[in-house]
Amino acid sequence: MKPLDLDEFKRQGYMMIDFLVDYHRNVANYPVLSQVQPGYLRKLLPSSTPSNPEPFGNILRDVKQHIVPRITHCQSPNYFAYFPSSSSIAGLMGEMLSTGFSVVGFNWISSPAATELESIVMDWLGQALKLPESFLFSSNVGGGGVMLGTTCEAILCTLVAARDKKLCHIGKENLKKLVVYGSDQTHCALQKAASVAGIHQENFRVIKTKKSTSFALSPDSLLAAILHDIENGLVPCFFCATVGTTTTAAVDPIGPLCDVAKYYGIWVHVDAAYAGGALICPEFRHFIDGVEGANSFSFNAHKWFLANVTCCCLWVKDSSCLTNSLSTNPQYLRNKASESNQVIDYKDWQIALSRKFQSLKLWFVLRTYGLDNLKNFLRNHVKMAKTFEDLVKKDKRFEIFVPRYFSLVCFRVSPLVITKKSFCNGTNDEEGHYNEFGGKIINDDKKRLVNEVNRKLLDSINGSGKAYMTHGIVEGAFVIRCAIGATLTEEQHVIMAWNIVKEHATSILSKRSKA
Amino acid sequence: MKPLDLDEFKRQGYMMIDFLVDYHRNVANYPVLSQVQPGYLRKLLPSSTPSNPEPFGNILRDVKQHIVPRITHCQSPNYFAYFPSSSSIAGLMGEMLSTGFSVVGFNWISSPAATELESIVMDWLGQALKLPESFLFSSNVGGGGVMLGTTCEAILCTLVAARDKKLCHIGKENLKKLVVYGSDQTHCALQKAASVAGIHQENFRVIKTKKSTSFALSPDSLLAAILHDIENGLVPCFFCATVGTTTTAAVDPIGPLCDVAKYYGIWVHVDAAYAGGALICPEFRHFIDGVEGANSFSFNAHKWFLANVTCCCLWVKDSSCLTNSLSTNPQYLRNKASESNQVIDYKDWQIALSRKFQSLKLWFVLRTYGLDNLKNFLRNHVKMAKTFEDLVKKDKRFEIFVPRYFSLVCFRVSPLVITKKSFCNGTNDEEGHYNEFGGKIINDDKKRLVNEVNRKLLDSINGSGKAYMTHGIVEGAFVIRCAIGATLTEEQHVIMAWNIVKEHATSILSKRSKA
Repeated sequence: MKPLDLDEFKRQGYMMIDFLVDYHRNVANYPVLSQVQPGYLRKLLPSSTPSNPEPFGNILRDVKQHIVPRITHCQSPNYFAYFPSSSSIAGLMGEMLSTGFSVVGFNWISSPAATELESIVMDWLGQALKLPESFLFSSNVGGGGVMLGTTCEAILCTLVAARDKKLCHIGKENLKKLVVYGSDQTHCALQKAASVAGIHQENFRVIKTKKSTSFALSPDSLLAAILHDIENGLVPCFFCATVGTTTTAAVDPIGPLCDVAKYYGIWVHVDAAYAGGALICPEFRHFIDGVEGANSFSFNAHKWFLANVTCCCLWVKDSSCLTNSLSTNPQYLRNKASESNQVIDYKDWQIALSRKFQSLKLWFVLRTYGLDNLKNFLRNHVKMAKTFEDLVKKDKRFEIFVPRYFSLVCFRVSPLVITKKSFCNGTNDEEGHYNEFGGKIINDDKKRLVNEVNRKLLDSINGSGKAYMTHGIVEGAFVIRCAIGATLTEEQHVIMAWNIVKEHATSILSKRSKA
Repeated sequence: MKPLDLDEFKRQGYMMIDFLVDYHRNVANYPVLSQVQPGYLRKLLPSSTPSNPEPFGNILRDVKQHIVPRITHCQSPNYFAYFPSSSSIAGLMGEMLSTGFSVVGFNWISSPAATELESIVMDWLGQALKLPESFLFSSNVGGGGVMLGTTCEAILCTLVAARDKKLCHIGKENLKKLVVYGSDQTHCALQKAASVAGIHQENFRVIKTKKSTSFALSPDSLLAAILHDIENGLVPCFFCATVGTTTTAAVDPIGPLCDVAKYYGIWVHVDAAYAGGALICPEFRHFIDGVEGANSFSFNAHKWFLANVTCCCLWVKDSSCLTNSLSTNPQYLRNKASESNQVIDYKDWQIALSRKFQSLKLWFVLRTYGLDNLKNFLRNHVKMAKTFEDLVKKDKRFEIFVPRYFSLVCFRVSPLVITKKSFCNGTNDEEGHYNEFGGKIINDDKKRLVNEVNRKLLDSINGSGKAYMTHGIVEGAFVIRCAIGATLTEEQHVIMAWNIVKEHATSILSKRSKA
């Protein structure tokens, strides 16, 4: 057994490249969302590890037969679900190299190049995003960036840093008084991080946003929540603002929110997981105006920045807050470089100790494409989203639910269409759900009906396998999300997706109105 | 710009495979531990992202020139540092495929095959390790496994689960009473996890171990600590036992420790990060006898199991404890499959939401090599470690510091050699450190001298670039750790490493004794 036999390495490596090329050639033909029943795979695979080696060809055959048809094809040009998880050759090459080296870069000494490249690439990207100088290593004032797996980790690490900083002032027995703030549009990572960090659940504030303000969090609402908590003897600690929320890509007003939070000594984290990459384009940069007031900022380069899952970039203004909370100094890791304080030990910026050579991937992406092309790549997705939006707008049966800033379009079949008499006063509806509404539909019933029709439409689209979109519910309304950003998506796919939506809507609406 | 152009994909892919094959062909020739000054790379790279694309060849050239000479070569056959981070073609192929698909498998529906393969592979591996049935999905009693990045995550997730379970009984206002237990040999991940989870630092127990019992934690010591805490009104919550500690690969007596902990309702996690893989060999399995009493068990397949960084396998007996603490259920992720409770949503088993198709890598490893070969592969490393140990034993200047169970040898230049009169009563020592000791060396000074000589020896070995070992300090003694497990290491490398140790020792000792 030679697990690194060079001839075999080359043979299997080429085979795998061919396999991946082939996969990408055909990816548009697979049903995007796999149609499969839970437990399918256990029936197809042996129940235990084989005792003897199996040829690589057999394993690849099983991948083709049992795996490929049953994954959701995020790389399909017809993938419009969640947010993109965009892949690129550069991302793949960087990851291959990192996996090939398989170094563990917990501290500087364990692999100097891994640490140094990461801090350089984080500065490159921070500059490209026009982050404040204070967030960069190059400014030498204590700020800098780190690559983590996901935004969930970024939020947990910064929340723990904020928690410990606050407790340092007020005493750790006051943990129960700390309050964490987000809006009802903030990613669920915040609540999870708060709970992991021991914040009391009743001190987790979910501040309401409104459709009338496009689901952006109002600084006044934040202020009111803070004041209320202070009145009650609680201690505001951490606030997460979002640029590009998960459901509708709403943008919280960063500057004004930072002003409020800063006044009360609250750590502000800006989560730009999806939209962050777009901020390299000057026309989008204004969305984080005022970020100087924030303590930390993160975005997922694996979402809409070609870096393949997973790659979260986190910048902090004062890295000592992170390292105060997260550093460890066991004897077996001690070394002269760390003791000299001349180096970064990234283990102290994250939860995990072991870490890959993470920056290669992003370094490859930035160099292979260059900043100008990357801007155009992102703009092109935004343009395609506008095309989709325009198509929706032209069809009177539909409505755009919230303003579109980036490449996410939130839409639905219009309530006006669904609740008009001809559509819902039938008496023969096969499921019998709407018969009783007739002309006297009450408000909640109307809403339920509208949601149900839209949900049915989405299920129908996704069931076709020809496109995959997901949903969100905001202010009680079920909306369909079309998130454009898969690397292979071109205008033709967006137009095709719209045709699929129309076709399925026509079928559903005509069935209803006939009923 | 076509980030997934198929011709380019193939061209770059083949180039990268060739690059990696070439790297592995030459890896033995590089200095294992890079000799480099902090900040070297910033001087070599541009200060910002290029605006325009750069050819792939240029990027690879920079990798060759600036990165390869400055990483620590974990894949070198002469890498004996920390613990192995063993690479394999199968691991690399699996990771390539995962990166190529770039699916996000947060829940079942987001990529059914990703979730299903993971649960199957975790059952395969759990069986191979002869974990209790209750830790496997196949037993249908609530147990099962998940793949995380690192042991740090495994410990944090289980600790949070244990914390919340306990607080559920005693009320969350009692967080300050919870106590976490480990030994002075437990990995620093435990302390970090406790601090992230909000456990009060003064309730973190570091129980002393002794050389006389090979640094295994004594159940009596654990019991005494627990009783003392209970007497003081505290609440024992979580205990982490280790099979193969970081410094000396000591093994805590799992069964007896579980008996103690279980009686007091303490969650027991077994951390077998390094040694876990070896438990597939029947002759090592006894090290976790009694693991039935534990609540969770983890090992890092990226250490000594060919799965390339990072890949931590965690099994829990009662997965509902994990999911009670870590589940989130935002509207945008709701789906029929999750609501049917027929599927696993791995996002609820970990900190992060987004996750790669992690199981491919391990599936490839298990199938490509087969269980019998894997056992032999591990046994061969153990055999090589025995060879090294025997060589050390034969040289009277050295001593083996602790019994060797697996593939880690802890040794040092013997205090008898260093402190004998001829060695330390010189008066011309260039650094003048030992002159005053003469024949009247007191105990602490002796110890310091012994440590200093051994530290010097290790620095000298590592400075040669011909081998890389690391150190540990136990009971005040500086020991040199030779961890065998790099995929390419063969007996010749082990013998060569020993010759390097001898040669540098001879040089250092003769210099001393002449002085």
